[in-house]
Amino acid sequence: MSDIIFTSDVQSELDLRLNGTDPGHVFILTDRNTYRHCLNTLGSRLFLPENVIVTDVGETSKSLESVTAIWQTLSSRGARRNSVLVNLGGGLVTDMGGFAASCFKRGMRCINIPTTLLAQVDASVGGKTGVNLDGLKNEIGTFALPECVIIDNSFLKTLPPRQILSGFAEMLKHALLTGNEAWQELLAVDLSHPESPAFLRLIEKSVGVKKQIVDADPQEHGIRKALNLGHTVGHAIESAAIAQGVELYHGEAVVYGLMVELALSVHIAGFDTDKYHEILRFIHSIYPPYIPLATPEHLYKLMGHDKKNDRGGVNFTLLKSMGEFTLDNYCTQAQVTAALERITINGK
Amino acid sequence: MSDIIFTSDVQSELDLRLNGTDPGHVFILTDRNTYRHCLNTLGSRLFLPENVIVTDVGETSKSLESVTAIWQTLSSRGARRNSVLVNLGGGLVTDMGGFAASCFKRGMRCINIPTTLLAQVDASVGGKTGVNLDGLKNEIGTFALPECVIIDNSFLKTLPPRQILSGFAEMLKHALLTGNEAWQELLAVDLSHPESPAFLRLIEKSVGVKKQIVDADPQEHGIRKALNLGHTVGHAIESAAIAQGVELYHGEAVVYGLMVELALSVHIAGFDTDKYHEILRFIHSIYPPYIPLATPEHLYKLMGHDKKNDRGGVNFTLLKSMGEFTLDNYCTQAQVTAALERITINGK
Repeated sequence: MSDIIFTSDVQSELDLRLNGTDPGHVFILTDRNTYRHCLNTLGSRLFLPENVIVTDVGETSKSLESVTAIWQTLSSRGARRNSVLVNLGGGLVTDMGGFAASCFKRGMRCINIPTTLLAQVDASVGGKTGVNLDGLKNEIGTFALPECVIIDNSFLKTLPPRQILSGFAEMLKHALLTGNEAWQELLAVDLSHPESPAFLRLIEKSVGVKKQIVDADPQEHGIRKALNLGHTVGHAIESAAIAQGVELYHGEAVVYGLMVELALSVHIAGFDTDKYHEILRFIHSIYPPYIPLATPEHLYKLMGHDKKNDRGGVNFTLLKSMGEFTLDNYCTQAQVTAALERITINGK
Repeated sequence: MSDIIFTSDVQSELDLRLNGTDPGHVFILTDRNTYRHCLNTLGSRLFLPENVIVTDVGETSKSLESVTAIWQTLSSRGARRNSVLVNLGGGLVTDMGGFAASCFKRGMRCINIPTTLLAQVDASVGGKTGVNLDGLKNEIGTFALPECVIIDNSFLKTLPPRQILSGFAEMLKHALLTGNEAWQELLAVDLSHPESPAFLRLIEKSVGVKKQIVDADPQEHGIRKALNLGHTVGHAIESAAIAQGVELYHGEAVVYGLMVELALSVHIAGFDTDKYHEILRFIHSIYPPYIPLATPEHLYKLMGHDKKNDRGGVNFTLLKSMGEFTLDNYCTQAQVTAALERITINGK
């Protein structure tokens, strides 16, 4: 597993990690936002200005075309296997940069500096990299761990509330997988101060949940599927949003996915109905309602492309109770459609 | 390490390996030649005709565009992680198909059936995958082992002699890395009957040399660099050929690379001069002379892009004596240029 560093001084930590690496061999991948707002935090003596690669923002930029442009820059500037690609940005940057690094000359050094809450608690940790193909999320990618991940929550200070909520969805998922105590802790959190030391401790706890699961099953043959809670439906909703050109944040799709998969959990895995309604009330209190982007039938079809499917039907991770998950539940179209329809009605 | 099967009955072995996998989830990657000459050897009941993917031949086809087309076919036909991509062809097919499989949904099943001698003794074994980028060989790729490699030398029966010689170059390299006995064995081989049981045993020995080295160092941090003998110069010559649109086989480039790197071995690592001349005489007796495709200076520059370089100068694997190699020899431009010039004069 990569080293994961929790800090409020990203510059010193990066300095330590690069440990005298020739600035000509340090490449920084940013998007237009992190180029403007975050790059100066790293200091300028660690890399050359011409080694900064700027990619577009938005899911449609997470493409083979973008990653090819990164490879061409690395190649033309003489990057080697022991050159370092530092991915400074949200999940798009860490996913795409991680993929670029893992395939450049069959693998170059890679450091992730996630700047959004979503990337800090999810994307940058665990070694999943990828880009989209023809509107399908992360259809092309690798399992490749960065050598380290530096998490500094002072980046969150200027993040729009919608972005904080997006990342918070993964923290909710981690809490659901852990148990009621972890869940209660999140209900009490102050989302308006994500830069606080208290919030950094919650991030650390949340990352700890993911790390423990990933360490046990890096390539998702078994227990790692637990982390898919909310994502089977969530990815389908996200694909529908991409296809329609609707801007939907990953965490928003995950929250809607969690609602649907908790409904399935009630019906199929015996999850407590009262707890289900309590969770839904909390989600409704902080997230916007779900507005359908596709029919349940179309969403079900999109789930057929999910990487976790390995036979007929769609494979779900469900909850039996708080902190107790069950893997490989194959649900029929009728079951999935019913759960999707319930959420649509409740969400309106 | 993958299972490597040596056989004269590829169909039965593939049947065993697929073991009832739904034909709709078996994909076959071929090139135009293996589509015409080799596909029928596999039998038709193991896969659907529409699951056969045909790629162009030639190094310029080993591109991100080609691999994207493979991904689009897999995606649109509903391939899953446990679907199988069978790569039927030479090194281009096994390298590119291996790369495609390793990144599709972060890794699907993959079986290599190499149909050229070169692919049988080298490309299909060891887990290096890749495509070219802007004329640079295998600039983008992964380390990813196929679940098995099926080697059937009856495919070699109809292979043009030039193709046999190309693969034989890697067998020469493996023998040089093993010792004088292995070398003498190759001098006596009958290259006009590569489909013979005796030749299959030589292939098995040669693959054994590679397998032993790769098992000890899958990701090329140390001893695997031994396999680069002949390749640092060879890849540069190959890049020059691609840039000029000259058709040069990989093994031909490797043989010229071996000649140059043995000259360096004499000067830098104390390799025996008489043995060097004996080896050169044998190479000259079966391979066409080297015709320069670029100036020594330009070739040296191309070597700067080699993945094995991790500091100034160019890093070579050299021979101290037959079977005794030395890694990480950094050679100056003057040394490399002198060796290149000697070969050019001798080769003419």
